[in-house]
Amino acid sequence: MNSLMLSERRRFSLGASPDPEPGEGEAVLRVEACAVCRTDAVMWDKGHRDLLLPRVPGHEICGRVYGAAPSSLQVVWPGIACGSCDMCRIGRENLCRSMRIIGFHRDGGFADCLVVPEANLLPVPSGITAEVATLAEPFGCALHALDRSRLRKGERVLIYGGGTLGILLALGAVAQGAEVLQVDPDLQKLEKGRSFRRSFHIGGGSVIDGQDAQDFNVVINATSACGSFSDGIHRLAPGGRYCLFSGLRGNEEYPASLVNEIHYREADLVGSYGCTRQDMRAALELLVLHEAELSFLIESRISLEQVQSIMPTVLEGKGFKFVITF
Amino acid sequence: MNSLMLSERRRFSLGASPDPEPGEGEAVLRVEACAVCRTDAVMWDKGHRDLLLPRVPGHEICGRVYGAAPSSLQVVWPGIACGSCDMCRIGRENLCRSMRIIGFHRDGGFADCLVVPEANLLPVPSGITAEVATLAEPFGCALHALDRSRLRKGERVLIYGGGTLGILLALGAVAQGAEVLQVDPDLQKLEKGRSFRRSFHIGGGSVIDGQDAQDFNVVINATSACGSFSDGIHRLAPGGRYCLFSGLRGNEEYPASLVNEIHYREADLVGSYGCTRQDMRAALELLVLHEAELSFLIESRISLEQVQSIMPTVLEGKGFKFVITF
Repeated sequence: MNSLMLSERRRFSLGASPDPEPGEGEAVLRVEACAVCRTDAVMWDKGHRDLLLPRVPGHEICGRVYGAAPSSLQVVWPGIACGSCDMCRIGRENLCRSMRIIGFHRDGGFADCLVVPEANLLPVPSGITAEVATLAEPFGCALHALDRSRLRKGERVLIYGGGTLGILLALGAVAQGAEVLQVDPDLQKLEKGRSFRRSFHIGGGSVIDGQDAQDFNVVINATSACGSFSDGIHRLAPGGRYCLFSGLRGNEEYPASLVNEIHYREADLVGSYGCTRQDMRAALELLVLHEAELSFLIESRISLEQVQSIMPTVLEGKGFKFVITF
Repeated sequence: MNSLMLSERRRFSLGASPDPEPGEGEAVLRVEACAVCRTDAVMWDKGHRDLLLPRVPGHEICGRVYGAAPSSLQVVWPGIACGSCDMCRIGRENLCRSMRIIGFHRDGGFADCLVVPEANLLPVPSGITAEVATLAEPFGCALHALDRSRLRKGERVLIYGGGTLGILLALGAVAQGAEVLQVDPDLQKLEKGRSFRRSFHIGGGSVIDGQDAQDFNVVINATSACGSFSDGIHRLAPGGRYCLFSGLRGNEEYPASLVNEIHYREADLVGSYGCTRQDMRAALELLVLHEAELSFLIESRISLEQVQSIMPTVLEGKGFKFVITF
């Protein structure tokens, strides 16, 4: 097998090694496509709380089970949950007390094959390419966030960020009958999503203004910009939900008066981190319906050799998805 | 009628005036007991966002409908909701877009009689005194907070504050099958609640320590101390809920890293403000069951003339409930 190993900070090494052997209940997956997540670039740049080095990253994986005669495409739920802790028992498997994540705690999809537990494989409905199927994981995370936000039909949603996740959140919200506004200060990124937004009647701009700039039922940050937090809390309707979808970057401090807004408006601030298998199944269903409108999210197909060179671009949050293909 | 009017900051005036006339759908209530809330003292000290002066305060009211032959005790839901806005339609009547509150926007129960909409009257089950029945409103707020916290049987609950609301929150949580720990730095207050906590197997102390000091499913602040927020967020279990029951006082600032704890633990920060009629009905049912154990919360019966003098004590949060009786 060929794989790309993150051996230390900012250092990938490409290498060949014997194919891995599956253990009990595991399968060897021949990777057809693995997308690069911004978290992969953050890991490359400065590590991550859940990362153990050296590691083959990659958790947005699509492939076929090795050896089986013409087998269908599969995507991989990257969590390995115990199934028996208090979190698993109430269905919050993404919060498993002893969670191990593919691409973080064990080797992932920046390789032409990898070993995964069979229970982590989710069949891809026919008609989706492997590249688009890699969106199942980030889209699953977006649907998980909408679920955490208890979005109801007809509600008004504000999304900070017009990148891949912002787009997927917007589509998920529209599919659930919401009225969506998406903001991003990056005019180039906005422009790239213009046609998509038009297709789905999603509002968008670089700033929020006008009479409709307040009173959102749900606000979601698909950006790590600290200002999206304070700004968004002020724009919540009574009983509104602010979903912390992205962690906040930077050293900003928030006054107690901002927290009190949550008290007086009886709002909810809900964290969202990862997704469950069920979220990914729901994402696959929406991908089948909207493959054509989402294909612009595949910015570029790259080889393992090119990954190192696109890391700074991914880190900056420029462009949509880079997908490693084999 | 005799009433106590807050005419300006820190100034009450006691006066006699003609009995008020009820409008369409309203009743005149002869007040038997009205408890003093800490919010009344804050209003007296420096106003409140929902207060219009001059005003007769008082929103924890128990009385009988005037004129009707031997009528039963009634408590008053202090909200006057429109019933038709988006919040009312989804059952969140305490968030009504055009909410007016008795004792804030119109005259309340620091008087021997007042006019209230008939729809705001809730009959008191037999066997409860008027003084204890005044607890229905704060207890309703406590039950509302537990509902907002989506408390489940068997969960671990941490309550900051050992005052009246802390006690009522603890009782409500125990009644729902939770395991409760209550903390308050005020040793005198803790001592007063010791017998109550023993009866209901509620843990308590002035500091949180030991192995069980982490991993609470629900944390609630029944104190405005800013430290209860940052401290409590750190003690949440994955998927835990922090309920902002009290607004935070002071100018503390919280770092983005604290907010990120909510993201990574997929926790919820839920605001709770006021209560609904249904919360007060549920509170009355629990009051019937536990009148004896809660009677220690009635610190003192006072007259309208004594209200001014006890304001500093209430403002400091010392003691439990002072109840004006007629």
